[in-house]
Amino acid sequence: MIRIYNKLSREEKSILVQRPQMSNEEIFPFIKQIFDEVKREGDKALKDFTQKFDGVVIDDVKVSQNEIQDAASFLPNDLKSSIQLAAGNIETFHRAQKKGTTQVETMPGVVCWQKDVPIDRVGLYIPGGTAPLFSTVLMLAIPAVIAGCKEIILCSPPQKEYQSIHPGILYTAELCGITKMYKVGGAHAIAAMTFGTESIPKVDKIFGPGNQYVTAAKQLSFQLGMAIDMPAGPSEVLVYADHTCRPAFVASDLLSQAEHGADSQVVFVTPDVGLANQIKLEVMTQLKSLPRKNIAEAALKNSFGMVIPSVEEAFEFINDYAPEHLIIASEYPEPYLISIRNAGSVFSGNYTPESAGDYASGTNHTLPTASAARSFSGVNVQSFMKTITFQHISQSGLQKLAKTITTMARAENLEAHARAVEIRLSSSNEKGL
Amino acid sequence: MIRIYNKLSREEKSILVQRPQMSNEEIFPFIKQIFDEVKREGDKALKDFTQKFDGVVIDDVKVSQNEIQDAASFLPNDLKSSIQLAAGNIETFHRAQKKGTTQVETMPGVVCWQKDVPIDRVGLYIPGGTAPLFSTVLMLAIPAVIAGCKEIILCSPPQKEYQSIHPGILYTAELCGITKMYKVGGAHAIAAMTFGTESIPKVDKIFGPGNQYVTAAKQLSFQLGMAIDMPAGPSEVLVYADHTCRPAFVASDLLSQAEHGADSQVVFVTPDVGLANQIKLEVMTQLKSLPRKNIAEAALKNSFGMVIPSVEEAFEFINDYAPEHLIIASEYPEPYLISIRNAGSVFSGNYTPESAGDYASGTNHTLPTASAARSFSGVNVQSFMKTITFQHISQSGLQKLAKTITTMARAENLEAHARAVEIRLSSSNEKGL
Repeated sequence: MIRIYNKLSREEKSILVQRPQMSNEEIFPFIKQIFDEVKREGDKALKDFTQKFDGVVIDDVKVSQNEIQDAASFLPNDLKSSIQLAAGNIETFHRAQKKGTTQVETMPGVVCWQKDVPIDRVGLYIPGGTAPLFSTVLMLAIPAVIAGCKEIILCSPPQKEYQSIHPGILYTAELCGITKMYKVGGAHAIAAMTFGTESIPKVDKIFGPGNQYVTAAKQLSFQLGMAIDMPAGPSEVLVYADHTCRPAFVASDLLSQAEHGADSQVVFVTPDVGLANQIKLEVMTQLKSLPRKNIAEAALKNSFGMVIPSVEEAFEFINDYAPEHLIIASEYPEPYLISIRNAGSVFSGNYTPESAGDYASGTNHTLPTASAARSFSGVNVQSFMKTITFQHISQSGLQKLAKTITTMARAENLEAHARAVEIRLSSSNEKGL
Repeated sequence: MIRIYNKLSREEKSILVQRPQMSNEEIFPFIKQIFDEVKREGDKALKDFTQKFDGVVIDDVKVSQNEIQDAASFLPNDLKSSIQLAAGNIETFHRAQKKGTTQVETMPGVVCWQKDVPIDRVGLYIPGGTAPLFSTVLMLAIPAVIAGCKEIILCSPPQKEYQSIHPGILYTAELCGITKMYKVGGAHAIAAMTFGTESIPKVDKIFGPGNQYVTAAKQLSFQLGMAIDMPAGPSEVLVYADHTCRPAFVASDLLSQAEHGADSQVVFVTPDVGLANQIKLEVMTQLKSLPRKNIAEAALKNSFGMVIPSVEEAFEFINDYAPEHLIIASEYPEPYLISIRNAGSVFSGNYTPESAGDYASGTNHTLPTASAARSFSGVNVQSFMKTITFQHISQSGLQKLAKTITTMARAENLEAHARAVEIRLSSSNEKGL
């Protein structure tokens, strides 16, 4: 459906930037039960749930060294070399993200600094399902390794066909340097990483996409004090297409997002109706021959094109929408980039399809959805680290700060805070200033 | 109580690093009711709740320009100059935290970059209660302003005495450049910033400490898609004191943490029993003359000293505990710093009391508690920004990536992803390579 921005009321505009509210409330009691059982029964619960939900009987929760080594033999050579090239680009971009220490002497004798330190133990969740998402393995494992996390584990549901995790996932994880992989998926995998079991270590932060159950499980885990990468929702793209765009390219990007799932949302914004209609026509034409035509068609039902003649208003709308993926379909994209305030990842120019960033350009594809890009970043090296601040104050530095600290502490009724300064400066305690 | 590490079982050690579990489950239905009412009634609900919970009748939710201007007259001059000096140091340290753009050409023609962008709208919550926490205003407002957030609002409950927010908070907020302040506290303030009301704008991220109700409200808000600074819990300190420490200084630091609240936890680790007893004795002596003696005494009941002769084991325990504040009480602190993996903020050396960082050294005092320092950072400039990734690919760059993307996309059963690349490279679409 094509909408004309200037004919919409303020309320209609604000409804269009909203995404369907996903409530997990109904499934929460079910997830809680799974958590309780995993906490109580450990590996036994994991094996039971895996038999029940995945239809696979597992003897050992951990993937064996043999299974990992055999994985490569299942994959065609061109896929392996593609994964390797993509891994190289992702590594190059993420390695550049590591920051050094920031140190400042705020006053003479008062030195403050900030240091990024890897999170000790992280858990990566990779969904199962029809398509093995080995690209997501790259996107989570590479920054975790670059950050320097001491323990990196991976959970993914076993596939009936292999009686283990899909070999594409095992191969990719091994390529990235992951050695601990577990044949467990769903909410019980999240529970296992939250509490730890005999096989699976408890972690400090959980990453990765998943279905509604996995999402609810990550929320519950967060409530129990676990850190998680970000709230998850259906994938989405917004394309801003000006007069120098190529309508066929725009349509191909919209469809590549639409084929993800029936709940995907694809949106395009153009300055005029003629262009909007051209894009729509291209979408209809290209749709016909897609293998996942039915999924894409369902997704297009949630989707719309929007005509906004003013560039300023267009980017006001786009920033309000805060898309996960934002494509600037133009021969001259640069002037638009400065106006972008809210987006997960931006694809600039006519030759930068979203699929480049999904797989191989180097950027991460684990991104905030449902307008979370207003305040959340996509996964990056910093997601696997935390920042610790330090300070070192000399006795003379403390002297200079003393009056300030004691005055403020006493005004906040915290006498012991003031005394902790004074005891260090009273003459009886001085050790030769 | 003093404990000897080598005599503890593994289980006893793991229990000692745990904090009391705080469950908000019982109060959740109550918080939900408040959220519903604020969503439905807007400002009217805020006024009703403020009368009910704070005993103050407010005509206007927003603090007036006059109230802000009058605030300075309530404060003694030495307090104002102390706040100004502290603000200067905090600004210096936080300004240094701003990072530039990271740009990399991962392959010829494939340029990826990462840019930090301020979050548009942020809400700062400052608790009321007996002590006005103007220091927390500094810690939240200064990084928000440095980040460049477009809209920064502040909510704090009105005090009966002033029929408005405490003048110390108003003065400090104004000094930092905050202009929109609202006389609302508690769970209803969090609800207002989550949904927006006639007076209070909806924000993208909520910051700040609070009691159990505010904490539960922030959790509920997070479930509704809001970003929050971090999970909150009672404040805590761990002091590592070696033979070159000054036991009286260590005791003063333990007590300055203990006076925060009966639920605070203070811990010290020393290499031998003799030193542990000296510190304990000093604590008992200094405690006697404190105005908040009863609170400190109650906090000391949750607390312990631990004797660990091996430095390596000591820091294993400390990293496991992951304290909010970590003091290295030693004349030669440097060799220990390298072993710190999990802590919120570190105070290095005998002349660096925690109260320096609480108020004036320049570091932030909004820090992760209850071992969240394993994966969360304290508030810093980055907390008020998000990272957006960008990529620009030339036609020849896409050519080089094409085989990789199409091979991986097809192996993941995503045909439209492959076609979005091929359509850009097929001869009919080439526009003079």
